[in-house]
Amino acid sequence: MAARAKIVKRLSTKEVTGRIEGMADTVVVAARKGEDPRFDIPVRALSNVSFNEKKRIIELGNNRTARQFFNLGMAKKFMQTMLVADALMALQREDVTTSLREVYYRTKHTINGSSENTFDNQNESDPIIEDLEVTLALMREELHVRAKSWGTIIGPVTVIDAGDTVDCTRQGVGGKTVPSIVEPGYLDIKKCSADFVLLVEKDTQFSRLSEDKFWKKHNCILLTGNGQAPRGVRRLARRLHDEWKLPVYVLMDNDPWGYYIYSVIKQGSINLAFESQRLAIPDARFIGLSSHDPEKYGLPRNVGIKLNDKDISRAKEIRKYPWFEKKKAWQTEIQQMLDSGLKYELDALANKDFRFLTNVYLPRKLKEKDWLD
Amino acid sequence: MAARAKIVKRLSTKEVTGRIEGMADTVVVAARKGEDPRFDIPVRALSNVSFNEKKRIIELGNNRTARQFFNLGMAKKFMQTMLVADALMALQREDVTTSLREVYYRTKHTINGSSENTFDNQNESDPIIEDLEVTLALMREELHVRAKSWGTIIGPVTVIDAGDTVDCTRQGVGGKTVPSIVEPGYLDIKKCSADFVLLVEKDTQFSRLSEDKFWKKHNCILLTGNGQAPRGVRRLARRLHDEWKLPVYVLMDNDPWGYYIYSVIKQGSINLAFESQRLAIPDARFIGLSSHDPEKYGLPRNVGIKLNDKDISRAKEIRKYPWFEKKKAWQTEIQQMLDSGLKYELDALANKDFRFLTNVYLPRKLKEKDWLD
Repeated sequence: MAARAKIVKRLSTKEVTGRIEGMADTVVVAARKGEDPRFDIPVRALSNVSFNEKKRIIELGNNRTARQFFNLGMAKKFMQTMLVADALMALQREDVTTSLREVYYRTKHTINGSSENTFDNQNESDPIIEDLEVTLALMREELHVRAKSWGTIIGPVTVIDAGDTVDCTRQGVGGKTVPSIVEPGYLDIKKCSADFVLLVEKDTQFSRLSEDKFWKKHNCILLTGNGQAPRGVRRLARRLHDEWKLPVYVLMDNDPWGYYIYSVIKQGSINLAFESQRLAIPDARFIGLSSHDPEKYGLPRNVGIKLNDKDISRAKEIRKYPWFEKKKAWQTEIQQMLDSGLKYELDALANKDFRFLTNVYLPRKLKEKDWLD
Repeated sequence: MAARAKIVKRLSTKEVTGRIEGMADTVVVAARKGEDPRFDIPVRALSNVSFNEKKRIIELGNNRTARQFFNLGMAKKFMQTMLVADALMALQREDVTTSLREVYYRTKHTINGSSENTFDNQNESDPIIEDLEVTLALMREELHVRAKSWGTIIGPVTVIDAGDTVDCTRQGVGGKTVPSIVEPGYLDIKKCSADFVLLVEKDTQFSRLSEDKFWKKHNCILLTGNGQAPRGVRRLARRLHDEWKLPVYVLMDNDPWGYYIYSVIKQGSINLAFESQRLAIPDARFIGLSSHDPEKYGLPRNVGIKLNDKDISRAKEIRKYPWFEKKKAWQTEIQQMLDSGLKYELDALANKDFRFLTNVYLPRKLKEKDWLD
């Protein structure tokens, strides 16, 4: 049974708006002095991203670049940054959350006396939101920008979602929807008596485990994001890990895509390196499906799926990730997939028995501590 | 406030297994008599699908075709049908639900003394499950085969999900996950005081309305399926409509895809014509986004998206659907989109104000009864 190890609090609106205003102030001050308005933005490029061996997460480095108003190549981006910052400020003032796409629509207009739009496409506004996240050192969620919310949680944990206390052992087979923003103040974890978190890639296995009340027998929390876990689900797993000291086990298909999703959950991603510090779970464990499982659990070869060229090159790429490269077990895992020429879906366990996952596979995996770190 | 108009009960396991056994018996009896084992299957092809003007749903006709064992072209399919029926029987006996993909894996094996597989691909087993649904006159869910469960519900309704009573006004901003199977006995609607159901296409608008507690102010149930509503969400909306007499309003993007999704919710689909009788909601209303809305609500043209060739041909196709063809309002709706050359996302309403959907658009739409039937 977990005891709360840490209490985290929501950043105040004042603190968030203070940071946005601080950035705006430097622009205003420069303009008043007749100087070139500018601000510095951390570089969000591969060149400024690295794997921190100590923290075991993918991190953004310290390189910064200037964004200047009096620079032909930067003037539009400068204006766009101001518009997005203004929209983010409105979100704080109105205490409202929104999506990336709505920020795009909100900030789009035709510039007075011209036929030019402030933004022509969402792929212009998205990177600016990311620029502002890193510049202000705030997560997107703290800036009130939502990702998709299609995760589900079930198990011995009581959460407070927007004021409502929800006991996740009393949510039927369907479970409780994980909202997109699970920061303290939005979602609080009131009580938790689980021993671990099982983060399940796909809805099929989640439904199986929910229907069989696996969470009850093994005293764990089931979490799913229906595919690659959205930010809310990853963040909630991270909070359960941090604040309640729960180990996190990740249940994925045995394919390069499964390895990749696991890698993102564990170490973070290159694209959103800035977020790793709040989303990554370096202690997360890969509980399967492993390349040695088909033999161990007697899965016939004909339920395997032939690796295609893309799978093979992807597997070889992932094998060289710095966090996998030095781990013998991971090298064996990936080599074994390449040698067999096959990948396996978790669904293939149904070939043995519909409840094989619940009754045989996972209990044995947990008992034998048969996972990869 | 709604009063329950109808109580529906779960089909007993005995009834379901009885139908499967009945089909198996005809095969056994024929085999014992030395006759050609065969059974008749309703034809699931466009030729046997029509729009029932009276019921206002897309229906399967009465044409049937024989599936015979002693027929070179049918023997494999005959064997496959038996295997799938056997798996479906196991699901009933073990009282377990599963996915289409797991049925495929379960029934896949290499035939003794050959290198031939019973199934090589899921696209061989899926149609057989559909064949069995129509032959046995049972919905997939009654046969314990799940679809994806990624819908969410919020509002003044109390459901019993697998024994747990859940008050959907106390589910925070995230809401309650709608399980994939919402048949009576799996999910029961215990209490409901809502005035209507608002079925929202996308997560963004659902989150907006949930955060603003639109359901509270307008006494309605918010339902979403994160895109094209999965079967569970459609079925639940249908049950709220049938059993609690709630009108269902559908909130979609203003594009041909939005029209199509609405059309499926309302009249059913050609592919799953058999399911219309349990899934379609012929009285469902399209509350927007309508082609006349951008002007009415002052959306600038630059937040519209240019129709591409595919959009245009799709819109022209949909315009000729028998259930749209005779409706003047729908002809105007689609023509207006074609004339403007633009489609609009609901997200574009954020151009006015982040809460425009909640505070202006929907209240006015409802007040003016500005919807399409």
